[in-house]
Amino acid sequence: MVSIGDEILIGQIVNTNAVFLAKELNRIGVEVAQISSISDQKDKIIDALDQARERADIIIMTGGLGPTKDDLTKHTLCAYFDDHLVKNEEVLEHIENIFKKYVTTPISDMNREQALLPSRADLLHNQFGTAPGMWFMDRGQVFISLPGVPFEMEALMKNAVLPKIQQQFVLPALYHKTLLTYGLGESAIAERIEKWENALPASIKLAYLPSFGRVRLRLSTKGPRLEALIKEVDMQIKKVIPLIDDIYYGSEADEPIENLVAKKMTELGLSLSCAESCTGGEIAARLTAIAGASVFFNGSAVTYATGSKIDLLAVKESTIEEHGVVSAAVAKEMAQGAQQKYRSDYALATTGNAGPSKGDDKKEIGTVFIALATPDDVYDFSFNMGNSRTRVINKSVNQAFEILYKALLKHKV
Amino acid sequence: MVSIGDEILIGQIVNTNAVFLAKELNRIGVEVAQISSISDQKDKIIDALDQARERADIIIMTGGLGPTKDDLTKHTLCAYFDDHLVKNEEVLEHIENIFKKYVTTPISDMNREQALLPSRADLLHNQFGTAPGMWFMDRGQVFISLPGVPFEMEALMKNAVLPKIQQQFVLPALYHKTLLTYGLGESAIAERIEKWENALPASIKLAYLPSFGRVRLRLSTKGPRLEALIKEVDMQIKKVIPLIDDIYYGSEADEPIENLVAKKMTELGLSLSCAESCTGGEIAARLTAIAGASVFFNGSAVTYATGSKIDLLAVKESTIEEHGVVSAAVAKEMAQGAQQKYRSDYALATTGNAGPSKGDDKKEIGTVFIALATPDDVYDFSFNMGNSRTRVINKSVNQAFEILYKALLKHKV
Repeated sequence: MVSIGDEILIGQIVNTNAVFLAKELNRIGVEVAQISSISDQKDKIIDALDQARERADIIIMTGGLGPTKDDLTKHTLCAYFDDHLVKNEEVLEHIENIFKKYVTTPISDMNREQALLPSRADLLHNQFGTAPGMWFMDRGQVFISLPGVPFEMEALMKNAVLPKIQQQFVLPALYHKTLLTYGLGESAIAERIEKWENALPASIKLAYLPSFGRVRLRLSTKGPRLEALIKEVDMQIKKVIPLIDDIYYGSEADEPIENLVAKKMTELGLSLSCAESCTGGEIAARLTAIAGASVFFNGSAVTYATGSKIDLLAVKESTIEEHGVVSAAVAKEMAQGAQQKYRSDYALATTGNAGPSKGDDKKEIGTVFIALATPDDVYDFSFNMGNSRTRVINKSVNQAFEILYKALLKHKV
Repeated sequence: MVSIGDEILIGQIVNTNAVFLAKELNRIGVEVAQISSISDQKDKIIDALDQARERADIIIMTGGLGPTKDDLTKHTLCAYFDDHLVKNEEVLEHIENIFKKYVTTPISDMNREQALLPSRADLLHNQFGTAPGMWFMDRGQVFISLPGVPFEMEALMKNAVLPKIQQQFVLPALYHKTLLTYGLGESAIAERIEKWENALPASIKLAYLPSFGRVRLRLSTKGPRLEALIKEVDMQIKKVIPLIDDIYYGSEADEPIENLVAKKMTELGLSLSCAESCTGGEIAARLTAIAGASVFFNGSAVTYATGSKIDLLAVKESTIEEHGVVSAAVAKEMAQGAQQKYRSDYALATTGNAGPSKGDDKKEIGTVFIALATPDDVYDFSFNMGNSRTRVINKSVNQAFEILYKALLKHKV
């Protein structure tokens, strides 16, 4: 895959097109060998195509197809394939229609020129935009050029490119499955499962993906039949789960822990609230990002200032004076305060010092207390999350969800 | 830049490391020629390095430095530079300290092996993790290997890599400025500004970046002195603005809007609180991510459930009954409630329907009300943010910060 345009190279945008393309291609059995982002300059595009054809059967380009002068892909492809531009009547009609229907300014020559295509290109119809996609066959390889606008590119992939690839190539199946673990580092996991890992068949690749107190184990494989791959991977998963029983949180591909919490709470008909100090609303934000969160999530009191813990959550001044604001005692009163104020079954609370400097309380950076109020009792947990602000916040959030999820598994209906 | 690891190639993660690296490198005057994502296989890494050294003076790799078997970068670099591994006592001590302080499982040989470095590598100290960064000089080119964990990589870049690059290279300045326009297509804009565009000096590159009714115009240039570049670009911008007067909405800030808010509030010695319904804690989370937020940010009441708006923020039941929970009147009372409860100078409130289904209130998906309580008054604003949950939440957050920032600019001391 070749993304054309400076916006990625100067850090102006995230390359989300690459994620979509990679997912869709993997799904139909096309392995992605490399993703390159390059500048929209003729010589850079030509170099990238020369190198890409050394490593792949299919080269997909995105971007550089707009009507303006900075967009060079079409002309460069024309030169690369020693071709010339020909007016495509079907595209011209489509562009004229778009202008009639949706655009208030009159159509111009610049717009009409988007209907010029290299003579050797198969047209890929872009229903949502004026820049057509193109498909070239050259020396047995396929070159595909798509617009960079995400929703135009996505529709073109689904409607035109993927079916055409499936038609022209005999594709293997690719299969990935990811196991979620919380609470143990990657090297400790690797030691536990060493024998199993060493005995894995060569066709299965294992990757460790650590982030913020969570390690995902991804098994990847490739073969002629998807059913056989699933069977083989599942058999290996059955063998490894007993080895990581205490840290294993499920195998659904890419499911964040808050989704597991959301499903469980919804299933049990329970409600949740939070009181967040050091996590500063991140627990709430991660929950709210889930569609349907309103069914179980009542809200969160982000009490960053010490005074607001007293005003909003009825934490006792004497508790703060005696134990400090970063303490198990305050975390517990925060959880109870949230549980009462938000009238929820469960409540999570966090208080800690995320750094970079020590706060109101003089506790060491990375010190975090998490409390969980359940219908029956309130529990506290203490951690040292290290000394990077981002890490302290994100690890605390994951840790809080983990504590809650474990409690929910034991919830008695 | 070379990102090593299959997670990007199978679409499991977005390459956000590339955005950070590209931004930081551009800032100090290093132009990014290409960003490649490749598989963590020895031959792929070697091919990528061979190709990268054809096009760049500095090659930065991320990823593949973990302690487990799937991480091959260090051994591959050792082979690539015909080098051997040597134990680094400083790194070993650092790893042992991390385990003592933060890890409950005992340190293993696998962890200790992370202290083995190629003999020719300069150590780049990774304060936040066990995988050290490495800096190689080879045939006049610099090869840098960094861990893929974002916050470890970011700290290494800021503390070690960027200063070392600035020390070893005479760097030009790079300057980008982006103008925001709304309401006209890129080709119509191009026609309007054609004469200006054709008269641009060759040193200034113009790019059109269209998306959803918005077209951004980016001017990029490079030269020995930043001041001269800024002057030159600003002069061109002064010429073009009269041509796009009716569609021009300002130039895009290089900094996220919440950082501008944070600076302004700190400078003015003001305090802020929030009351969040549809944004669900995302405003608070974005503020809390900023180091030093506690100076001005008191907290946020995430009141997702209707009842909690009454209980925590003293929104009147009669207001909800009369106007619905998604309304300007409720937003205003939420803002005033937060202002009082958190004893803050300013307060932001959001209430809306982010979808995918209509909530308690039957307002259309995408309807959002934002209110701002200032020391003098309370103001409300209404929007239709479209129908994707992620977009509604994030647009609302940005919009709220914009409203607040505009008010702060007018704040009378």
